[in-house]
Amino acid sequence: MQARLYPSTVYLSAPGMIRLVQRKGLSACIAGVADRIEREFLRWNDFDKTARVASHSDVGVIELMPIADAEQFAFKYVNGHPANHLHGLPTVMAFGVLADVRTGAPRFLSELTLTTAIRTAAMSALAARELARPGSRSMALIGNGAQGEFQALAFRDLLGIRELRLFDTDLAASAKLAANLGGQGFQLRICASTAEAVRGADIVTTATADKTNATILTPDMVVPGMHINALGGDCPGKTELHRGVLERAAVFVEFEPQSRIEGEIQQMPADFAVTEFWEVLAGRRPGRVDASEVTVFDSVGFALEDFAALAFMRETAEALGLGEILDLMPETADPKNLFGVLRIASGSEAARDVMMAALH
Amino acid sequence: MQARLYPSTVYLSAPGMIRLVQRKGLSACIAGVADRIEREFLRWNDFDKTARVASHSDVGVIELMPIADAEQFAFKYVNGHPANHLHGLPTVMAFGVLADVRTGAPRFLSELTLTTAIRTAAMSALAARELARPGSRSMALIGNGAQGEFQALAFRDLLGIRELRLFDTDLAASAKLAANLGGQGFQLRICASTAEAVRGADIVTTATADKTNATILTPDMVVPGMHINALGGDCPGKTELHRGVLERAAVFVEFEPQSRIEGEIQQMPADFAVTEFWEVLAGRRPGRVDASEVTVFDSVGFALEDFAALAFMRETAEALGLGEILDLMPETADPKNLFGVLRIASGSEAARDVMMAALH
Repeated sequence: MQARLYPSTVYLSAPGMIRLVQRKGLSACIAGVADRIEREFLRWNDFDKTARVASHSDVGVIELMPIADAEQFAFKYVNGHPANHLHGLPTVMAFGVLADVRTGAPRFLSELTLTTAIRTAAMSALAARELARPGSRSMALIGNGAQGEFQALAFRDLLGIRELRLFDTDLAASAKLAANLGGQGFQLRICASTAEAVRGADIVTTATADKTNATILTPDMVVPGMHINALGGDCPGKTELHRGVLERAAVFVEFEPQSRIEGEIQQMPADFAVTEFWEVLAGRRPGRVDASEVTVFDSVGFALEDFAALAFMRETAEALGLGEILDLMPETADPKNLFGVLRIASGSEAARDVMMAALH
Repeated sequence: MQARLYPSTVYLSAPGMIRLVQRKGLSACIAGVADRIEREFLRWNDFDKTARVASHSDVGVIELMPIADAEQFAFKYVNGHPANHLHGLPTVMAFGVLADVRTGAPRFLSELTLTTAIRTAAMSALAARELARPGSRSMALIGNGAQGEFQALAFRDLLGIRELRLFDTDLAASAKLAANLGGQGFQLRICASTAEAVRGADIVTTATADKTNATILTPDMVVPGMHINALGGDCPGKTELHRGVLERAAVFVEFEPQSRIEGEIQQMPADFAVTEFWEVLAGRRPGRVDASEVTVFDSVGFALEDFAALAFMRETAEALGLGEILDLMPETADPKNLFGVLRIASGSEAARDVMMAALH
């Protein structure tokens, strides 16, 4: 028998994450992730940041999103396939890993499909708390797919949003969202068009899935003081806002080098002025300057948000006793003797003989 | 009860991979992976290729290596930490994933620590079969760590190498390698220096771990006709060959844009001539031109080798009935209703009530 020499990888499956969110509470998870994102954004310069690596095909994109500080390396695997519902699959699926920078050992492997919805909502609400008009009470939700409930709850909890105006080209999606949000303190209205949903809203969240240069939101729909939380423009060739909307707004992004490639601002010249949101949090740059300004959070999803979410979920799983051990790495008594694992791991002479015979 | 709608992820753990190699046989695995690498390299232009994304620290590097064709996306997570043996950990640890390009669903998650040693050995021997002098019989192995046995067996099986001359600054590593290779048809000699090991060898394999610009091999050690399989120069600031060795050799690389950053050729001007090895395999460019030429395979490890190894291991695991199902993705009856998994997955009213209470 060998001693367990390796730091094992803790695995949190999708059912494990569902249990975690059920036990901790979804609101507590959203608030906890928002706090963690804020804390990590405030030490922005501690991180080794890169734009994510994307592999595009005709039907979607698969991305790897790495980031590290001096202690931990994190990455997320995530896809975006707008037609996936035709195969019974979500548009976005994800998982991720936290690893020790000191040794490179992966320590935590987790589902991130559910977690991505939570962290995206937390990020959106955190940004809106800084950028939306104080006293905002109503939000239009354009695109009522998998993210809708999470966005609604995050904006309820962090900003006090109570009035929701829903629109989706798929009426069933709006009906699903309204049904899921029933009894949770919202006034809900399903609208017949984007224009109707947007009219009178303090905040507009766009979260549509089509991989195209769409113009979900046009300048005529935008009124002074509006905050636009633009989620769906998040890869080259996939935008939601008419460029005229951007021209009249103060635009905030997560990580500028990535947003120039993937965000709404891919439509704009390279010198179009934007502010990285962490600078607003840190008090280095102004957020909204007055009640009549139009603000846009051009959100594409940045690795640091997943770093924060993974850290929160790891701590919460540990506190709740959730997660399993995964034997992702071989154990060796002598790390220079990797070959040795083929001889001793079986524990039986028979298997050893089979292997030795195969060597010859 | 819901039907299982998702394509599940098959998980091959480190113990599972050990069983696979024991049952299939290490030689069969090396040969199978070499065949698969050759097949994939011959359709080089079918792949969406990028240099890997590396996150460097003072003590090591963590890398993500993605690649895709029209059907499958693959990536490997791999670290390189030369001082890891001080913590009882291997220098290199790895795992990887194969996913469907059509939907983005991850289908196979596997340990790749053992597999990386196998695929690196397969790649080395495949290159040497094209580039070494026909009739080569002896190899010097400089650096006798975790990769040594795999290199030796691959060169025995694919090239007929029988004479091994070992050198490592850590004599215990050479002794370990010699002991592991006993009784397998080799003439083995442990040497007192690199120069002694290299003298008279047809092929020289360098596989040292130090993250430094080393000069393991100097021009005076190189004789006409030698093939040099340079493995250990594989990230910025980590090289093994004196530049004079490169100046007098025909140099072959895997993927030129990555090798310019990471390989031995990082020492050379940007226009230093190299040949991508796939072109030799495809008959588009010459390999070795005569018996007196010095050839260098400046190998850094390229994602396509892992793509090939993952594909081989997936097929072999399926054939042998190995692997487990991992619930990495949540199952939903309606993919647009991700929120719904929080309500129905628990299956108990009590849990549902806890969650609903937490929502408020």
